[in-house]
Amino acid sequence: MNATELLARRERLLGAGAPLFYREPMNIVRGDGVWLFDADGKRYVDMYNNVPCVGHSHPRVVEAMHKQAGTLNVHSRYLHEGLLDYAERLTDLLADSLRSVVFTCTGTEANEVAMAMARIATGGRGIICTDAAYHGNSAEVSKLTRARRGKDAEIRAIPYPQCYRPLQDGVSPSELTELYLEEVRAAIDGFEASGIGLAGMLVCPILANEGLPDIPDGFMPRAAEMVRDAGGLFIADEVQAGFCRTGRWWGYEVMDFVPDIVTMGKPMGNGLPLAAAAARTELVDTFRKRTHYFNTFASSPLQAAVGMAVLDVIEDENLRQNAAKVGEYLRDKLAKLQDRCAPMADIRGHGLFIGLEWVSDRSAKTPDRENAVDFANRMKDKGFLINNAGALGNVLKIRPPLVFQQEHADLFLTAFEETLGEIDGAA
Amino acid sequence: MNATELLARRERLLGAGAPLFYREPMNIVRGDGVWLFDADGKRYVDMYNNVPCVGHSHPRVVEAMHKQAGTLNVHSRYLHEGLLDYAERLTDLLADSLRSVVFTCTGTEANEVAMAMARIATGGRGIICTDAAYHGNSAEVSKLTRARRGKDAEIRAIPYPQCYRPLQDGVSPSELTELYLEEVRAAIDGFEASGIGLAGMLVCPILANEGLPDIPDGFMPRAAEMVRDAGGLFIADEVQAGFCRTGRWWGYEVMDFVPDIVTMGKPMGNGLPLAAAAARTELVDTFRKRTHYFNTFASSPLQAAVGMAVLDVIEDENLRQNAAKVGEYLRDKLAKLQDRCAPMADIRGHGLFIGLEWVSDRSAKTPDRENAVDFANRMKDKGFLINNAGALGNVLKIRPPLVFQQEHADLFLTAFEETLGEIDGAA
Repeated sequence: MNATELLARRERLLGAGAPLFYREPMNIVRGDGVWLFDADGKRYVDMYNNVPCVGHSHPRVVEAMHKQAGTLNVHSRYLHEGLLDYAERLTDLLADSLRSVVFTCTGTEANEVAMAMARIATGGRGIICTDAAYHGNSAEVSKLTRARRGKDAEIRAIPYPQCYRPLQDGVSPSELTELYLEEVRAAIDGFEASGIGLAGMLVCPILANEGLPDIPDGFMPRAAEMVRDAGGLFIADEVQAGFCRTGRWWGYEVMDFVPDIVTMGKPMGNGLPLAAAAARTELVDTFRKRTHYFNTFASSPLQAAVGMAVLDVIEDENLRQNAAKVGEYLRDKLAKLQDRCAPMADIRGHGLFIGLEWVSDRSAKTPDRENAVDFANRMKDKGFLINNAGALGNVLKIRPPLVFQQEHADLFLTAFEETLGEIDGAA
Repeated sequence: MNATELLARRERLLGAGAPLFYREPMNIVRGDGVWLFDADGKRYVDMYNNVPCVGHSHPRVVEAMHKQAGTLNVHSRYLHEGLLDYAERLTDLLADSLRSVVFTCTGTEANEVAMAMARIATGGRGIICTDAAYHGNSAEVSKLTRARRGKDAEIRAIPYPQCYRPLQDGVSPSELTELYLEEVRAAIDGFEASGIGLAGMLVCPILANEGLPDIPDGFMPRAAEMVRDAGGLFIADEVQAGFCRTGRWWGYEVMDFVPDIVTMGKPMGNGLPLAAAAARTELVDTFRKRTHYFNTFASSPLQAAVGMAVLDVIEDENLRQNAAKVGEYLRDKLAKLQDRCAPMADIRGHGLFIGLEWVSDRSAKTPDRENAVDFANRMKDKGFLINNAGALGNVLKIRPPLVFQQEHADLFLTAFEETLGEIDGAA
């Protein structure tokens, strides 16, 4: 069945508008490490997918899944030592205060838990987020999606902190931090004034969906402090930033602070639905007692075995170090191409998570979504999977599996230079 | 590590109050077909778990998972024929009108989708449920959990329809149906009067969590008609009733009507997180267009391969027929014991889903939760896993994997009779 036929069948079975990547959608049939293969046998370097963090079809993860599925997979109303071993291993990777965990199946569910936990603990209902956020697809969590002022009294979005298009031009870096903190202060005050009360602030510590901006120095630690001083809890959504993506275990380490609640998901099970909210034990206790939370497929022996295998591979294959090293290599090489690539106005990110700000005019910083999309499609045709993202849709997102090596970066850079030669606007 | 140590460790790592079954929690380490094995090597007939519907660790499901995980497991923004094959096979099992499907990871997420779908399609916000319902753990879906009048203006709960403790005594069966339908009518009128508008009605077609009552004749089809006539959509939550549990493929078939939206989950992947909302294509189209719904781990090749293997096993091993036949056998045998078992006041259910109403006084119908719990714990000690459930917590729930055979029923019945000899109140 060719792509046109598959597409028609898909629209009938899944409904028209189920999202697809690229102008000509890909028919991927196999994955191995950083490589994906389509039905025609063409191979692609996967530079987009963070879920298969230890690589597509990693044999150790596949075998752990196989063994556990053939032994036991049942819900969590029985004791299971493997689950506790995993919970212990996982929380040992977190800051000392984050000792207990609620497992879920999806990042959405983890953020549902985190929001409920903060609201129960504080008695407040108000959640602060950014104005270009995405934290999940449920009715409650999707209130945080690109939240508009006044749409929901319990949600207040601040302009996401960034250095590239700052809230105000011509201010010093430290003044810029203060300006964004004033937005947090205003949101807190707004919740107090309206009687809604502050529950907390929920953000990705590296602002991945916002477009991975350089964040004004000290913003995250000081925002967390401000939220805590006002009686709220700071929730770090590590669904994208966690599990060594940044070269550190957690995005909050990059930002040099410790959140009250951490949510995690995507890479956690290398593709098995597995997510969690971790927090101080007393927060989890109170949440459990108030909600009697139960999630049929979560906290299962299967989740535990697969999650443990992912941690084993990350550590045994030194993937954290690899993400830091290869990420830096790729970012440096891209920086060297910047003079010859007029649209690539800003290069940023952490570890193996890089954002390229694509503009039509560097001095005006005019976002150029259309040509970012075009560039991603050209790179895809050359066998390299990246895509556009960010608040304005004009940031090229590079986020390969953590097993991505220098040799793959070099292949990419060659294709990148070739593509520069093809496009308008390149010097 | 013994159970006491495991329990202490669990409270620390997962928080105190994470739910557990039985007075002495079980430490289950292995599952095979209808059997579960604890760490001491003691085996139990699993008569509770519906998730492993084709049996614990079924080799065909395990191999399908193994093969697909070793080939490709990636999100749904690429085309994948296996996913479409599964969607087609699944929708072919549903009523003709239910042609399109939104896959999710959990039943909660499926009900989130269904509620959003109904609200988008109708423009109304009001959802009718029963007063002893449970449909999931998110903020939005948990508004339906044992909903209290007036707590949320968008949710109206009707007294769940039942014959055992009817809304009014001394009325004829057909009058009883009318009385419950009047409750639906009042809820619809309430939503209209308040300006909230009707989105739909969301119920389990066999009222599993309510306690699996005998439902007044014709209630479900007529309630569905009434909701539709008022411009709403009828959502059947088949998370428990679906996949041949009742001896039919779907609970709505038992009740002889066709819903507008069907949600499904638990048994769908035999333990892999897999759930869905199916509906008419135009409802799914509209939902997709309005929400751009995306769920990272859902609609994956892994979900499709495992879901397909479950359907294969159900059909090849005639599990639907088995559920009907063995369920009837067990229900008949229990009925024969009823005279000798004063607490067992009502025996009901469909296929391999049986509810035993436990009372301290048959004429007063006094619910006896405490002794239902005691009975379940005694049966567990004898090697048979059942549990208490229902609106009043006094219904013994029997819901084994669909591979449960007559020989297992006979073992259970022997232990059941033995236990009757031990308890107070048995004749």
